[in-house]
Amino acid sequence: MSRLLYLQSGGPSAVLNTSAQGALETARARGVGGCAAADGLAGLLAGRIYDISRASAADVAQLGNLPGAAFGSSRHILPAYHVAPQQWEQLAGVLRRFDIRYLLLNGGNGSMTTAQRLAELAERFDLPLTAVGVPKTIDNDLEGCDFSPGFPSAAKYLAASLREVITDMRSMGGGRVFVMETMGRHVGWLAAACALAAGDDEPAPLLLLPERAYDEDKLFAAVKERMARHGHCALVVSEGLRDAAGHFVSQMRESQTYGHEQLGGAGVWLGERLQTLGLHAHVAVVDCLQRAARHMLSGVDARLAYRVGAEAADWALSGRGGVMAAIHRRLRDDSVDWDVVPMALAEVADKERELPDAFIGADGLSVTPAFHDYLRPLLQGEVAQPWVDGLPDLRVPRWTLLE
Amino acid sequence: MSRLLYLQSGGPSAVLNTSAQGALETARARGVGGCAAADGLAGLLAGRIYDISRASAADVAQLGNLPGAAFGSSRHILPAYHVAPQQWEQLAGVLRRFDIRYLLLNGGNGSMTTAQRLAELAERFDLPLTAVGVPKTIDNDLEGCDFSPGFPSAAKYLAASLREVITDMRSMGGGRVFVMETMGRHVGWLAAACALAAGDDEPAPLLLLPERAYDEDKLFAAVKERMARHGHCALVVSEGLRDAAGHFVSQMRESQTYGHEQLGGAGVWLGERLQTLGLHAHVAVVDCLQRAARHMLSGVDARLAYRVGAEAADWALSGRGGVMAAIHRRLRDDSVDWDVVPMALAEVADKERELPDAFIGADGLSVTPAFHDYLRPLLQGEVAQPWVDGLPDLRVPRWTLLE
Repeated sequence: MSRLLYLQSGGPSAVLNTSAQGALETARARGVGGCAAADGLAGLLAGRIYDISRASAADVAQLGNLPGAAFGSSRHILPAYHVAPQQWEQLAGVLRRFDIRYLLLNGGNGSMTTAQRLAELAERFDLPLTAVGVPKTIDNDLEGCDFSPGFPSAAKYLAASLREVITDMRSMGGGRVFVMETMGRHVGWLAAACALAAGDDEPAPLLLLPERAYDEDKLFAAVKERMARHGHCALVVSEGLRDAAGHFVSQMRESQTYGHEQLGGAGVWLGERLQTLGLHAHVAVVDCLQRAARHMLSGVDARLAYRVGAEAADWALSGRGGVMAAIHRRLRDDSVDWDVVPMALAEVADKERELPDAFIGADGLSVTPAFHDYLRPLLQGEVAQPWVDGLPDLRVPRWTLLE
Repeated sequence: MSRLLYLQSGGPSAVLNTSAQGALETARARGVGGCAAADGLAGLLAGRIYDISRASAADVAQLGNLPGAAFGSSRHILPAYHVAPQQWEQLAGVLRRFDIRYLLLNGGNGSMTTAQRLAELAERFDLPLTAVGVPKTIDNDLEGCDFSPGFPSAAKYLAASLREVITDMRSMGGGRVFVMETMGRHVGWLAAACALAAGDDEPAPLLLLPERAYDEDKLFAAVKERMARHGHCALVVSEGLRDAAGHFVSQMRESQTYGHEQLGGAGVWLGERLQTLGLHAHVAVVDCLQRAARHMLSGVDARLAYRVGAEAADWALSGRGGVMAAIHRRLRDDSVDWDVVPMALAEVADKERELPDAFIGADGLSVTPAFHDYLRPLLQGEVAQPWVDGLPDLRVPRWTLLE
């Protein structure tokens, strides 16, 4: 039996496994044996592959309820052939051994390089393999996609959580300062999303984005104005904030006491800077909570995450390889919807999409109405959370390895 | 028209306003004018009181959807009479001027001292006032209550969030260490709740509780064992963790570089200690998100929060003062339910309930099955979240001041 292999690569999102569900349910519906690499490319190299054709339909459906990477992922990128020919040979052997004819790689911009190389590998070793990319990354930095699956849910979670905290903060009288650190090592999409936390009668939080160098004079002036007018101030800082010289602010806290790296990152650093204004900030570092928050998905995100997985499987099974299932926005009758369209892997691999200038306010601490128009449709809709005994049902099915 | 005044005191919880809803809907049903102090005791002293009898039923019902303190709160405690007689006179004047006959104070153990003093104030100034306490605190440290409203929802949020992160962490291969810092300055109830994050096939996170002095040898041995056996380790640290000498670990990071207090707290401190083991931990500091997470309430918590507000209003209107509406557990036919019973304010004011020894494991890093039996019923049930345009509907009604 020829097989379709699904492979997860890079950091997870809250809907990564929803794409897996879309891919594997499509393979099943088309009568092709689905399988999934254990622990990403590292597991594939070792021939560790789960046989999903033997899993129950309920177990495959459970994928849609799980954050993380249900089959395991890794950050391993396949090197170019001339760098590691033995890895290519090893992979070719595994693909041949398990008669893998269709391969879906679910990852971010770095992972799409691997997808490209897998397509090259098929040619080089004359394998009947069709490789298709499936997009994912909470960072939203994939070129050619209106959004990357995973981003809308993380954005919704961050904006909703900050809206709750602002409601809390406002109720406790004057003088409150709250700093929230978001992920986004190189791009500010997640931090920018927090702008939507503010309600109608509340100023938007001040945003510190990687796309704008830290400018303390400008920031402090804005904070002082907020404190004077509103009595409180919310700030959002991306973990990737840098100073004018291009240094990450999170790395400016080298300890002179212990001699090792100080943790705490951009949020704690910013809290300490605000102390010089005489302000005592509460600092929240959301860390992995923001990418694992399955309990608060964007309905749009979950729907499109499923679709890119399903369409990629369809394309692979139809022999349409070398592409990624990109998401394009379509405006129709004042409503927004999305198409899933093929895009050459070469156009997306290893490229990085920053937050464009048109989305960043002139003060560098805010977003424009155009960004609101962009983001608002992505946050729409909710997805039911299955509970068991008062907590999320995150049972990971026991998959069986192919032999 | 005689009035029932509702007063919020101390830090908010995700269900504080649900108690307000219970109290004010009860007053309305009994034909008594409800009002609420703006910004807690500070506003009451200044005669700033919202007239809830003129609010729409929909606005009063919206209280149940709001985190924070919808009328504003403060940490102001009424001093003893001999310390501040003028404050007592001022308060008596306000209560007389607005014909306030019934007063509900919604707060924690410190606030119950104020409730006691308000009862004394009525006697001293010969006011026809009945004062009743309504419990709340995410810390769960109120004496005489099976639980404090606010704690079950914060516990559910923390355990659910950590369960999501563990699912994420496990999917990324070996070597992962995750530290989550919870609130709980003096007591470890919230940190302990995170024990329930683990599923059946996962060891419980290691817990660092204020009730046990930090013991690095013991902790490091446990972390090494986890890494060797499972390849990853989750740790939960209470912000109130102390060393054997009784010092908060969060205050051990005085900067020698800037000369001011370093932020980051117990979580960052613990992450730095783990570096000495060669481990690089992800550190999440949940901060106010855990007490403001209205989007993930415990159904039990919301139901009882409403009931203590409603019963306290009933008691006040029936002239039964000087008590707090305490929550007692009742076992019946293998199921758990709760009664709301009056408890003398003197028995609860200014007392603090630590996590009892019977709930802490012998290793000091875990909880006992008895704690699971205690907590599990508190997490049951969910409450719908109203959404508007993809984000939580946290519209705060515009209340009108009494004149």
